[in-house]
Amino acid sequence: MDIGERTIEIAPLDRASMDRARERQDSLTKPPGSLGRLEDISVAVCGMTGLVPPDLSEKSVILCAGDHGVTEEGVSPYPSEVTAQMLMNFASGGAAINVLARHTGARVVLVNAGCACEVDHPGIMNRRVRPGTANFTRGAAMTRAEAEAAVAVGLDVAASEIERGSKLVATGDMGIGNTTASSAVVAVLTGLPPRAVAGRGTGLDDAGLERKIAVIERGLEVNSPPAGDPLEVLAAVGGLEIGALAGVMLGCARARVPVVVDGFISGAAALLAARLYPGAEDYMIASHLSVEPGHQAALDEIGLAPFLDLRMRLGEGTGAVLAMSVIDASVRVLAEMATFDEAGVSRESENVEK
Amino acid sequence: MDIGERTIEIAPLDRASMDRARERQDSLTKPPGSLGRLEDISVAVCGMTGLVPPDLSEKSVILCAGDHGVTEEGVSPYPSEVTAQMLMNFASGGAAINVLARHTGARVVLVNAGCACEVDHPGIMNRRVRPGTANFTRGAAMTRAEAEAAVAVGLDVAASEIERGSKLVATGDMGIGNTTASSAVVAVLTGLPPRAVAGRGTGLDDAGLERKIAVIERGLEVNSPPAGDPLEVLAAVGGLEIGALAGVMLGCARARVPVVVDGFISGAAALLAARLYPGAEDYMIASHLSVEPGHQAALDEIGLAPFLDLRMRLGEGTGAVLAMSVIDASVRVLAEMATFDEAGVSRESENVEK
Repeated sequence: MDIGERTIEIAPLDRASMDRARERQDSLTKPPGSLGRLEDISVAVCGMTGLVPPDLSEKSVILCAGDHGVTEEGVSPYPSEVTAQMLMNFASGGAAINVLARHTGARVVLVNAGCACEVDHPGIMNRRVRPGTANFTRGAAMTRAEAEAAVAVGLDVAASEIERGSKLVATGDMGIGNTTASSAVVAVLTGLPPRAVAGRGTGLDDAGLERKIAVIERGLEVNSPPAGDPLEVLAAVGGLEIGALAGVMLGCARARVPVVVDGFISGAAALLAARLYPGAEDYMIASHLSVEPGHQAALDEIGLAPFLDLRMRLGEGTGAVLAMSVIDASVRVLAEMATFDEAGVSRESENVEK
Repeated sequence: MDIGERTIEIAPLDRASMDRARERQDSLTKPPGSLGRLEDISVAVCGMTGLVPPDLSEKSVILCAGDHGVTEEGVSPYPSEVTAQMLMNFASGGAAINVLARHTGARVVLVNAGCACEVDHPGIMNRRVRPGTANFTRGAAMTRAEAEAAVAVGLDVAASEIERGSKLVATGDMGIGNTTASSAVVAVLTGLPPRAVAGRGTGLDDAGLERKIAVIERGLEVNSPPAGDPLEVLAAVGGLEIGALAGVMLGCARARVPVVVDGFISGAAALLAARLYPGAEDYMIASHLSVEPGHQAALDEIGLAPFLDLRMRLGEGTGAVLAMSVIDASVRVLAEMATFDEAGVSRESENVEK
């Protein structure tokens, strides 16, 4: 299937590079496997990029923003205007993602995929598909063509970032109401009930959470999106930034660039991407586990395991960018550590007590 | 109680600084608490240092090495000589800890607290208390005076590193056989049976693990160290590097410098330090969760929760140094993020839907 005129082909991981990386890991001055998942991450990145060691020198976080008509139903304590206000805050460098991206050395790429308000700033790419989605309790959030256009936004932005030199991409989101849309998407794609995947988002109380669950249930009832048609699920109950983020991940996968999946919204987008193009998940690295219950469900479904447990729930790419430092470290270990022979250290196999 | 002539006084956390830090966190452009434990870490570090924001510009990892007489019992697939060989590898910059410390910007400080072999290198501090411990299945691993001297080594090295400017210290260990000694220490101090805290170390098979458990059981039977006298526990079944690491943590706590606890060996040392001087644990930050089962038990006992889940089991300070980057990030968020007022973003309280 193409997205617009964009052909998406995703290559399998390069097994030969992975074998070489594993062999090198086993020759380094440490008991085999003793760096655990730090070793696994480096091997996976070699398989994605086809390079041993890979080059992760340039990094970016692609942050896609969009608004949600379903906020009319009172599913968030914040008004929709905050989406655009926060985009401006990102552009000014004052938000959490700016601080953390500086810390990791990642470029922040801001994409307006569908804010309700106009946003005009030279630091924000205007790729607005429509001014927010429609309220999905009264019909589809967007048309199928708009869903496809949202995915295309992400594909294009990923391609241009990779063209600029990015070797490692993180995903980030902003969108008041987007945990509601993400919960709906994850519920459909996993087959789990809304109650099992919906959480408190930015800070709902018990009554708010019950209202949110009811809203998602109503959305699924009104639209009954078919789980087997992920683009239709995105159109029915998704979001413009969710579609764009799925596009970012597909854009990375087809260019063999590792993509670091942030929290719940990115997790929903990752699941969408993996359903649209099976194999895309091979190019994804999970970062942190969000407190939103749907995040674990989405990651489990794709087979990804996060390694940061910070009980974060902010989005913006904050968890993914923190994780980049660990991914970087995994690759540096592969590239820079001495082997047993180089260091003159005795190996287990030479000394093992029988 | 003093250690040698060193008086140890540990101040309580500075609650006023913690309150100021929490207040600032709540004024930053994100839903309150949405950065989860990243916020908590920054607040804790303010309490430890008494500074808002704290200065973590200079970092070091203090890696203490020692040998274990109990290796005679076949508890490790590696021979004792590897301890000194790896110390030389650390001094040459080729080990995992060197790569990860470069990545994080931490100085590597190498301390020979009790290697069996002679180690002569200008990059390694020679503070050898004795050439490895005695085999604890036949009597105490060391004398009480030697245990105290080992703790003093860590106190002195921490003091000199802090004097040199270190604002954040990580602990690391090297010592063939030291998961056996650490399991014994943790078993006594938690009251858990050796079977519940012993793991495969650098790579024991099932038979090796059974032998290791039997060795620990024998050590506890022969020495029956009193859980209420932590120095005696260290002397009976501990290790010279374990004592030194407990000293490093106490040295940091008394100087109000946050100390990042690495894996299982450091966890055992942390538990010792907290039992020697209750309150020392307030200055500790857990990093990763080791695959060694005793690590969780030790951290639970102290009330520390790790945030990296990488299934590592190497020691050397590798997990602690990886965690330093996240701790740094937590403090940068506190220092550099914009407040709602600065950014002109609407607050929840102004807009909350009733």
